Amino acid sequence: MAGEFDFIDWVRDQQKPSDLVQVPAGDDLAVLHWPKEELLLVGVDQVLDGVHFDAKTHSPRQIGRKVMNRNLSDCAAMACLPAAAVVAVALPRTVPLDYAKGLYQGLREAADAFYCKIVGGDTATWNGPLALTVSILGRSAGIAPVTRSQARPGDRIYVTGPLGGSILGRHLEFTPPIHLARQLAQSAHLSAMLDISDGLSRDLRHICQQSHVGAIIDADRVPIHPDAVTLSQSNGRSPLEHALHDGEDHELLFTTATALPPAGIHIGQITAEPGIFLKQGDQVAPLEPLGWEHALGQG
Amino acid sequence: MAGEFDFIDWVRDQQKPSDLVQVPAGDDLAVLHWPKEELLLVGVDQVLDGVHFDAKTHSPRQIGRKVMNRNLSDCAAMACLPAAAVVAVALPRTVPLDYAKGLYQGLREAADAFYCKIVGGDTATWNGPLALTVSILGRSAGIAPVTRSQARPGDRIYVTGPLGGSILGRHLEFTPPIHLARQLAQSAHLSAMLDISDGLSRDLRHICQQSHVGAIIDADRVPIHPDAVTLSQSNGRSPLEHALHDGEDHELLFTTATALPPAGIHIGQITAEPGIFLKQGDQVAPLEPLGWEHALGQG
Repeated sequence: MAGEFDFIDWVRDQQKPSDLVQVPAGDDLAVLHWPKEELLLVGVDQVLDGVHFDAKTHSPRQIGRKVMNRNLSDCAAMACLPAAAVVAVALPRTVPLDYAKGLYQGLREAADAFYCKIVGGDTATWNGPLALTVSILGRSAGIAPVTRSQARPGDRIYVTGPLGGSILGRHLEFTPPIHLARQLAQSAHLSAMLDISDGLSRDLRHICQQSHVGAIIDADRVPIHPDAVTLSQSNGRSPLEHALHDGEDHELLFTTATALPPAGIHIGQITAEPGIFLKQGDQVAPLEPLGWEHALGQG
Repeated sequence: MAGEFDFIDWVRDQQKPSDLVQVPAGDDLAVLHWPKEELLLVGVDQVLDGVHFDAKTHSPRQIGRKVMNRNLSDCAAMACLPAAAVVAVALPRTVPLDYAKGLYQGLREAADAFYCKIVGGDTATWNGPLALTVSILGRSAGIAPVTRSQARPGDRIYVTGPLGGSILGRHLEFTPPIHLARQLAQSAHLSAMLDISDGLSRDLRHICQQSHVGAIIDADRVPIHPDAVTLSQSNGRSPLEHALHDGEDHELLFTTATALPPAGIHIGQITAEPGIFLKQGDQVAPLEPLGWEHALGQG
């Protein structure tokens, strides 16, 4: 892309002032007034052409939205509010300036929906494919962050929506469940939570490993998305398999001892003995982490 | 790379607890206790194969150190202290686990030298070349951040060391001038500062544009690095041209009304009228921003 520096100027011109941001993008670093008494949450998530999106079929706006929404979804997973983000873009040399603007518009649309400021960026052109990286800063804003490590034997396991088949489109277009996560965390004591990105069977394993517990999932209770049914008709894998192992649903997976949380579908139980099991009728078998790794890649 | 999740486990195992970090890498987001009364500085910088390094000749440790040191150097440019960093790595599918560990060791070495914690990461494999992105969080720690926007007519312009020819090796191996930057900012009122990454002619332009001023540089005063002399012998460009336009020196460029700052070589003056000029003997001519963009790329 010619005019790399033009793009940075354009990004700078899009910025609006705020209480949080003292010095916005355009200096070596942005300067923020971090709210006193608030914990600072920070993480990073990237999307790569051919792995998380396909630049040949997805628009730059969709790609920009996806990488920001993945990071916003990490905020949901911790029940925090997004505050600010910085973005790095590795652009193929051939893309025109308008393409870069499309990426940024997608990033901005997704961030604006949750009052998250884009406060910095780094753009470079290269001979490689398109890659976008977002780092997000979240604030606790009155709610203790919900980690993955406090699930306890006897806790119930919940998901907030039907799973499977996100590759048909939902992996690209989803709403980060930030409001729902905070409502849940305010109404019930959640012992662990995350957003399902790697697939239920893998993500549940993250909770179990970090909490030093096991789990048993009731196959009959796992909510199956219509996309999982559609997908099963073309590839012979069952809708349940898609629901258990597909990724990028971005529904919340949480555990709690509270009997009736304000939302969530009860799908199983945390156990003291390690291992993750699936109960189907009278059968109980280990649930292997076959989870999705790359929706578009060779996996 | 096989065993992507192994690598993330390995990164997690390398972590040490600290006062700053309540929940380290391994959850959806890291949780930090941000020190009260301290400003939070945040930015992002990436390095790409074929642009900022050459994976065929540079070791993974060198590459890891470079991307972290670039971000630490941004902290120097603002006179803040690095506190925490998150890292995204896009790995070619073919690299072995040891290569990824080499990258992380380089990242850690550079960060440890300034007590900066790596608190999060995202690793993915793809068919593209190697790309690393670091986002850094800095803290003001008693010194007001030095921006690019407060240079005033009459201020003197300084650099902290000789310039040019970093492509011969210094672009890869340099020490972020954090201690020097803080010493300068404590001893004198600095009106603007940055670290020279794009080249003196470009970076001075950043200060002038953001401060709405001009500048005149005295060619005789510009300190020339021996590498610039070496390079000039092979390509016919003068050592001064290399000093003015090469990038990635990571020396500090600052402006101040203080007559004798504790360090720095006086190379010119800020002017009220816009435009950047070079004085050579009796000749004064516009200094065009021919600055380096890609040390290793096709430019």
